[in-house]
This record gives sequence, C-alpha cells and structure tokens, in this order.
Amino acid sequence: MPDSPSTADALPASAGSITDVPGVRVGQVTRRGDGWLTGVTVVLPPPGTVGGVDVRGGGPGTHETDALDPRTLVPTVDAVVLTGGSAYGLVTAHGVQRWCAEQGRGFRVGPGAGEVVPIVPAAAVFDLGRGGRFTAHPDEATGYEAAVAAASPDGTTVRRGVVGAGTGALVGRRFKGGVGTASLRLDGAEEGVVVAALVVVNAAGLPMPPGATGPSPPLGRSPALNTTIGVVATDAGLDPAEVSRTATTAHDGLARALDPVHTMSDGDTLFALATGARALPSERAARVASLVRVQAAAAEVVRRAVLDGLLAAEPVMVDGLEFPVWPGG
Amino acid sequence: MPDSPSTADALPASAGSITDVPGVRVGQVTRRGDGWLTGVTVVLPPPGTVGGVDVRGGGPGTHETDALDPRTLVPTVDAVVLTGGSAYGLVTAHGVQRWCAEQGRGFRVGPGAGEVVPIVPAAAVFDLGRGGRFTAHPDEATGYEAAVAAASPDGTTVRRGVVGAGTGALVGRRFKGGVGTASLRLDGAEEGVVVAALVVVNAAGLPMPPGATGPSPPLGRSPALNTTIGVVATDAGLDPAEVSRTATTAHDGLARALDPVHTMSDGDTLFALATGARALPSERAARVASLVRVQAAAAEVVRRAVLDGLLAAEPVMVDGLEFPVWPGG
Repeated sequence: MPDSPSTADALPASAGSITDVPGVRVGQVTRRGDGWLTGVTVVLPPPGTVGGVDVRGGGPGTHETDALDPRTLVPTVDAVVLTGGSAYGLVTAHGVQRWCAEQGRGFRVGPGAGEVVPIVPAAAVFDLGRGGRFTAHPDEATGYEAAVAAASPDGTTVRRGVVGAGTGALVGRRFKGGVGTASLRLDGAEEGVVVAALVVVNAAGLPMPPGATGPSPPLGRSPALNTTIGVVATDAGLDPAEVSRTATTAHDGLARALDPVHTMSDGDTLFALATGARALPSERAARVASLVRVQAAAAEVVRRAVLDGLLAAEPVMVDGLEFPVWPGG
Repeated sequence: MPDSPSTADALPASAGSITDVPGVRVGQVTRRGDGWLTGVTVVLPPPGTVGGVDVRGGGPGTHETDALDPRTLVPTVDAVVLTGGSAYGLVTAHGVQRWCAEQGRGFRVGPGAGEVVPIVPAAAVFDLGRGGRFTAHPDEATGYEAAVAAASPDGTTVRRGVVGAGTGALVGRRFKGGVGTASLRLDGAEEGVVVAALVVVNAAGLPMPPGATGPSPPLGRSPALNTTIGVVATDAGLDPAEVSRTATTAHDGLARALDPVHTMSDGDTLFALATGARALPSERAARVASLVRVQAAAAEVVRRAVLDGLLAAEPVMVDGLEFPVWPGG
C-alpha cells in the first residue's frame, strides 16, 4: 500500500507500486541466459485512460508518441510498453497491440467487433549485447506474452529489480539497474487520490541518495545510449493537456534521483496515465491547486521508483563477468 | 528528369520523382484483392543522410519520430517507411529495420559487423477495411520486401498512383488517392541542387487545382482518420535543425494542394532527408538565402506530388463498389 507524502524524504523498504492505482495492471516478461539479458514490461490501464508523454533525453527510441500530443484526436491510451532491445525492441508494441485488438480494446473506427485501432505507445532502453548476444532482443511475441501477463491474476503485483524491461539495465555503466515502482496516496483536497510510478533505470548517471545535494563524480566516456523510461499513473481525472504536463513534471524526479540525466547520451522518456476515477475540482483556482499537488507527487514517485529499482536489483553474472549492485544501496 | 522552378504554376505530365535525388531509392509493395487494398512504400537514402520530421495532423500514427528531433544524438536516418494499415501497419518499419541490420546500415553501437541500430522512422495512413477485410494490413515481412525492392535495380524508378502505401488511399472520402512524386532542380546559387518529394495522398480534404484561390466545398462528417504522409529529399547539405525546418516548410505544399488539411481528422506527417552531396554556402547570410530557396522548393514539390498522386490514380473496384478518380484531374 502507498504511504503518505509526509514521509517523502525517507525511502521505505517498500514504497508501494503502480498497481496501487485502481485498475492499473503490469505484465513483465524476462529473457535471461543463453545470450539473453533483456525483457518487456507492459502497463495496462483501464479502458478510457487518458495518456501523455514527455521525451526529454537525447537518444530516444519511441513508438506512437505523437498520438499522445494533447492537440490530437485520440486522448486515450490502451497500454504502454517499456522494452529492452533499443529500437529493435519497439516491435513488442505490436504484440501488445495484437492482444488489445483481440480484446476489442482500442480507438473505435468502425461498427464491427474488432474494428478498433489500439493506441500502444512504447519506449525502449539500450541493453543490446549485455547478455552476450547482440541480436537477442525482445520480439513481437514477447510483447504479446507481457500483455497476457498483465491481464492475468498476477497483473496486480509488480516484480521489481532484474525483471522485464529492467533485466539488462545498468546504471553508471557498471552497476545493475532494474525496474522500480512507488506510489503515494494524497490527502487534503485530493484525499484518496493515488499517484504512482514504474521506471526502468538504465542511466549513464549515478544515483543521488536521498538528501544528497552535490553532483556524483564525473563520468568518463559516455556509453552510446542510456535511458530511464517509465510510466506515471494516477486515478485523478486529468485532461490530455494536464496529463502531458504531469509527464513533464515527473521528469524532475529523474533529475533528483540521477546525475547526470537528460543528456545527449540518454533517451529518457516518461509517459503519464490518468484513469479518471477520481474527479479533481472543476473550479479553476481549486483545480490548479490540485494539479500542482498531483504533479509534485508525480515527480516524487518517480524519484522513489528510481531508488527502488536500484535497491531491488541483484548482481548478474554474464560469461564470468559480474554486474554488481550499486554500493550506495 | 526534374524541370525548372520557373514552371511552378503549371503541372507537367511528369514532374520528376524523388529518385532524381542522387542515391535515393524507393521500394513499394502492393497488396490488392481477396480483402486487401493496402501496401508499403520505403524511401531508402544513401548512408549518412540527415533526417527530420514535422507531424502536423491531429491523428498521427508514427514510429521513431522523436529520434529525428534536431536536439538528439543521432542525426542520420537509414530509411523512411510510409505504410497503410494505420497503427497496425507501423510494424512494417521493423521489417525494413531487419533488412538494414543485415546490410550493416545503422547507428553503430559496437565494434562487431552487425552491431548497429538502424534508424527507421515511419508514418501510417488509415485504409483499414477498404479492401473488404479490416485485418488485412501490412506486416513485418511486407516491410522487408519493400526494402529489398528499394535496393533492387527497380529502386531508381517510382511507380505512382494505386501502389505501395497509396494502394488503399482515398481523397474527399470517395475519390481514389495514391502515391505521387515530383522534383525540381534549382539554379542560381544552388545550381544543380535537387529537391523532390514523394507523398501518399489519403486526405479528407479535396484537391485545390493549380491556381485555385477559394476553399473546396465544406465536407460533411469527417472520417475517422485521413492522412497525407510523405518524404521530401534533397542532395543539399543540411544540418539536423535545417532539415527539420525543411519538413515544416514542406507542409505548406499540403496547404496549397488540399483543403481542408492539418485538422483533427488528419494525421499529416512529412519527413525530410538531406543526403549532403552538394554543400550549401557556409557564410551565414548566403546560407540562409540558399535555405530559403531549398525550403520553398520543398513546399512546391510537395504540392506537385499531391496533384501527381491524384492524376496517377486509377479507379478501383471493391466488392462491386467503385472508388472513382478525382474528376478535377
């Protein structure tokens, strides 16, 4: 269960998860061994969920992000895919799309049962070759399998660490990264609203521990592509522009957790989802005040989720070489 | 061969093609009959080509467009995919990506022969169900086949009309659309520079004939998704920001050829490619003057390519129902 915002400066052993947002489910597929060290994580929100995205890194690998611009026709998102495999891995979005179409989930374009176009945006992390084989990247069927997992009874529980799209993730080029998640339940005027995040931490930057104020030691030559990608979700009712702004604010959680981040060698991308179960005030001043609190919470859950992903990671051995865990944990 | 800019107000019978840009090749696969009316068009530029994009429609279906932002790490594009099948058809980009990887084309991320990540952005037009079967959309193998066609001896010739990604295209909800292409060879300070376009015309709007000044008759209920997508290419040397601006300017060719366009029911997306074979002046004022002429030509070739696509289209019968050609042709 999520804790309260008053504990924001301490990192609890378990900080809740993105599935604390009612109706949000997660499915993960992990491919390890025999050259593989990669996977896929799917976030499956309830029908009618409004989506947005902010791409802030210099090396993004993304799919269907333009459809999430608030100036476009379709405000809803059927699933979000986070994947390993760099641009090759984006094909997993089509497996998730196939699953959604079979379920009749998608933007309706005709009267027939299957006449839908599922909106399944995706972002990828670079992990090519980390398991030993460059071509061992997730395929369309892996995406389908992750969607099935999200819809299964296990879809309300989030595994963390070396799992799903975090399987091949590293931080600071040598420490094991992974999947992290966190949630907060708001009080006051937004009593009961849940704001949560799931991230895949694959950053060039090193973590800034809670309370740290200075930068991490400078890095040497940056790797080709490093990326933290993730999803922020809430049950608050946000319109497309508000949910896009929430994705923007959420990137501040990356800035507070990792240094450096958002550089040319990162592909940092965050999606935001609003299920709309809990309406925010419609009166403008009260609404803006509520949005500020929801968006500030979005940054905080991203910060916590990054640290959660590092704390949950375990060392991984590949061909006798160890990727250790971050010693700051 | 391209004609000169001085004939800009008249539409020649053949207005040149995008393969007039040295090194640019086109491959198209057409799927017609037995429920199918769709296809794929691949534009394959020479290695080192710089790419940009501008997404201006309200219902875009796109892939890997964020990587083309001029603020990102990788300035080059390995291929551009235009496809039918709406968001389902974007999977064809992965077939083209597979072909590029086999050829060693892509952004290098390691020392091994195949250690590349091909940058293959894509955009889709909505043609689902137009051949009679909603699920008859192009797949990964169709994309691969189109890449092979682009690299074949036929890749220097562009078929127009009801072909490739234009196979299922319509304009004004009832007239047959298709693939069109055009080119211009500049003179003066940009002597010999070629600017060319290939577009897939699938617009809600009706064509504005050359010289028309008023709007077309208002449309009734807009269809779900209509889209004109395309590629502008030049052999001028443009940097990533300049090529992105060129994509923006090129959209004015759509505004001059179609009305309405760029609305919530369109997914209009144009890519721009600069092979860099012909350097523009480096002195700032002269360079800006050259850019203005290249970019104005980009808008003009898009306008001509749209009209070319309509003129090249032929009527198509599906289940006894005819999609006629545009009578203005």
